[in-house]
Amino acid sequence: MNPVKTEKYIKIYKEGLLNDTIPFWIKYSVDNEYGGFMFSVDRDGSILDTDKGMWQTCRFTWMLATLYNEVEKKEEWLDLALHGIDFINKHGFDSDGRMFFHLNREGEPIRKRRYVFTETFASIAYAAIFKSTGEEAYAQKSRELFQIVMNNFNTPDLSSPKFTSTRPMKGFSNPMISIVTAQELRKNLGDPDYTDQIGESIAEIESDFMKPEFKAVLENVGVDGQFQDHFDGRLLCPGHAIEAAWFILNEAKIRDKDPALIRVGTKILDWMWEIGWDKEYGGILYFRDVRGKPVQEYWQDMKFWWPQNEAIIATLLAYQLTGESKYEKWHDMIHDWVYRYFPDPEHGEWYGYLHRDGRISVPLKGNLWKGPFHIPRMQLYAWQILDEMKSANSLS
Amino acid sequence: MNPVKTEKYIKIYKEGLLNDTIPFWIKYSVDNEYGGFMFSVDRDGSILDTDKGMWQTCRFTWMLATLYNEVEKKEEWLDLALHGIDFINKHGFDSDGRMFFHLNREGEPIRKRRYVFTETFASIAYAAIFKSTGEEAYAQKSRELFQIVMNNFNTPDLSSPKFTSTRPMKGFSNPMISIVTAQELRKNLGDPDYTDQIGESIAEIESDFMKPEFKAVLENVGVDGQFQDHFDGRLLCPGHAIEAAWFILNEAKIRDKDPALIRVGTKILDWMWEIGWDKEYGGILYFRDVRGKPVQEYWQDMKFWWPQNEAIIATLLAYQLTGESKYEKWHDMIHDWVYRYFPDPEHGEWYGYLHRDGRISVPLKGNLWKGPFHIPRMQLYAWQILDEMKSANSLS
Repeated sequence: MNPVKTEKYIKIYKEGLLNDTIPFWIKYSVDNEYGGFMFSVDRDGSILDTDKGMWQTCRFTWMLATLYNEVEKKEEWLDLALHGIDFINKHGFDSDGRMFFHLNREGEPIRKRRYVFTETFASIAYAAIFKSTGEEAYAQKSRELFQIVMNNFNTPDLSSPKFTSTRPMKGFSNPMISIVTAQELRKNLGDPDYTDQIGESIAEIESDFMKPEFKAVLENVGVDGQFQDHFDGRLLCPGHAIEAAWFILNEAKIRDKDPALIRVGTKILDWMWEIGWDKEYGGILYFRDVRGKPVQEYWQDMKFWWPQNEAIIATLLAYQLTGESKYEKWHDMIHDWVYRYFPDPEHGEWYGYLHRDGRISVPLKGNLWKGPFHIPRMQLYAWQILDEMKSANSLS
Repeated sequence: MNPVKTEKYIKIYKEGLLNDTIPFWIKYSVDNEYGGFMFSVDRDGSILDTDKGMWQTCRFTWMLATLYNEVEKKEEWLDLALHGIDFINKHGFDSDGRMFFHLNREGEPIRKRRYVFTETFASIAYAAIFKSTGEEAYAQKSRELFQIVMNNFNTPDLSSPKFTSTRPMKGFSNPMISIVTAQELRKNLGDPDYTDQIGESIAEIESDFMKPEFKAVLENVGVDGQFQDHFDGRLLCPGHAIEAAWFILNEAKIRDKDPALIRVGTKILDWMWEIGWDKEYGGILYFRDVRGKPVQEYWQDMKFWWPQNEAIIATLLAYQLTGESKYEKWHDMIHDWVYRYFPDPEHGEWYGYLHRDGRISVPLKGNLWKGPFHIPRMQLYAWQILDEMKSANSLS
């Protein structure tokens, strides 16, 4: 990548993070009355729903502490991260140690889910706060939550009692989220033992979810990795697989550019870009069927914000690790498409839910699923990768 | 409606039912090896998934028996209805009397749900088969299932344990489905006692879900009918409310054109047509927000087959009962839009999932939710209503 282009992208990602995304959420979401954050906001930041989603609460807390740890020791960020973790401590947990998914403004629980994804996001939030503060209690809580997650993933009865044992399946989400959660804990708790879990999860993805006969990563397989020729067994979520691709490429980078891991990560990216990139309109499609048949999810061709963000990181990281010009080109393609349609020039931040051709479906900025996570994480990581590339170039 | 137009519509609905919809499903869905039906078929009728959804199994069984009872004593229809009920008897029930939602081809259970909607569809299937055969065991089973449904609806702990008691809500689906289920049981079991249940459910809709201050019927309210200013409390599903409108108008017709019930049914239709009719592209939109804010469901502006079908019945029935020309006009509008976009001229039957402007999203003809129900029910009822209007005209 030439230096002018590198600088252009650094400016876009860094300024987007520091002058748009993070200020937007700090301005509109902080609840100074009841604690925590209200992320369900409309296009202009006005509150649509005072309820509090725990995914986003944990993720913004993680994001703020990570900015404090990795960008600048800004007191505002640490104060708000502590504001988040206090709310999580006070209201996030059921008596069995599991977490709630959805609270009202006052912090009373409305819904708990079978899935332990809230716990994964809480685990990385506690780890990042430990890094910021050095207080051991946060590290301890982070480790406990990771253990709850792993117990749940390894005991299918706990995680999916809504299905019978007739055709037991397992989802790609579990090994995928295990990788990035363990990476965060290793980094912030300083515990190298999490490397084993990362290796196991990558091995499971390789052996059970990656299917060379389809050149695809499946979302759901039989418990031993069997292909199941049903709607759910044929389902592909390119954005999801591309996100996992960069988790694996990141592990390759940490392991001194491990060539085997680079091969796995780029193979997933290559396969799923081919399937997911919309050759007609641009952007990453939401769902596909591995045999090209109709999927059951009727909104399958929409363009959500998060798969696009993950594709920006994955293409950039693949380019950094391999130097292959195709990844530079893919990064240009996804960057250009995303920045044409997603940012809201009037009120700031990004839309989340576009039709296939880039028209807006719903203009809200936040809800239980969209909040300050995929966009600022992408902006931070893309900026960091480009900064590393710049340093490497100036050394050479 | 002038006689030429009446004849035109009768021909379209009757021929669509007898020469397209029903033959399509008889040709492609019957499983002669394991029993029951496989409804998950692609555009051309080829099987996409051999799994069996119990909603559609019960509904097609009901539809076939109803055709036998009300259109013609055709042995093929009765044989297939019995083929359906045999599969339901053999594989549909869990040991607690509740039903499964999703089976594999062999009839083994894959998923059971908290909700008792499968039981409502089974209840009307058993009642229709009792009418066809006179065998008391079917009537008994139908009544038992209705009792299970009512117990579940009246005991919130049974029906929605996934939410806590912090902000208990109730859904419009329950009183709505109670009306049509009780109407079917009254008709086919010949038991007038179900009229009380119908009256109670209509009263609950009037007092708790219809909100004159919004001119809207809410999908979810507090347990005592309170408006809840949250995403779910503001949610409107115009197709759903319009379906309930014709259940109520049908009750008015049965009760000798009861003027109070006509007022309730037409008020719902008027309110929700105003909210749901897409003034830009035509057709009935899926979700709206009662305050005009963004809804959480990002696919909110799609055009599904079923709300359009329900709007055809509702407008026609409102016209039959009131003679108001606006309902004739609305019927023309929805009919024209639907027949421009939904039918598949090449392979028959209808698409189910269109984008807002009528473009196809997924071309499949069936899955766990779409099967031989809303379309043939509309075709049968619209034909019957038009036939009654024709007779009334020729008498006058």
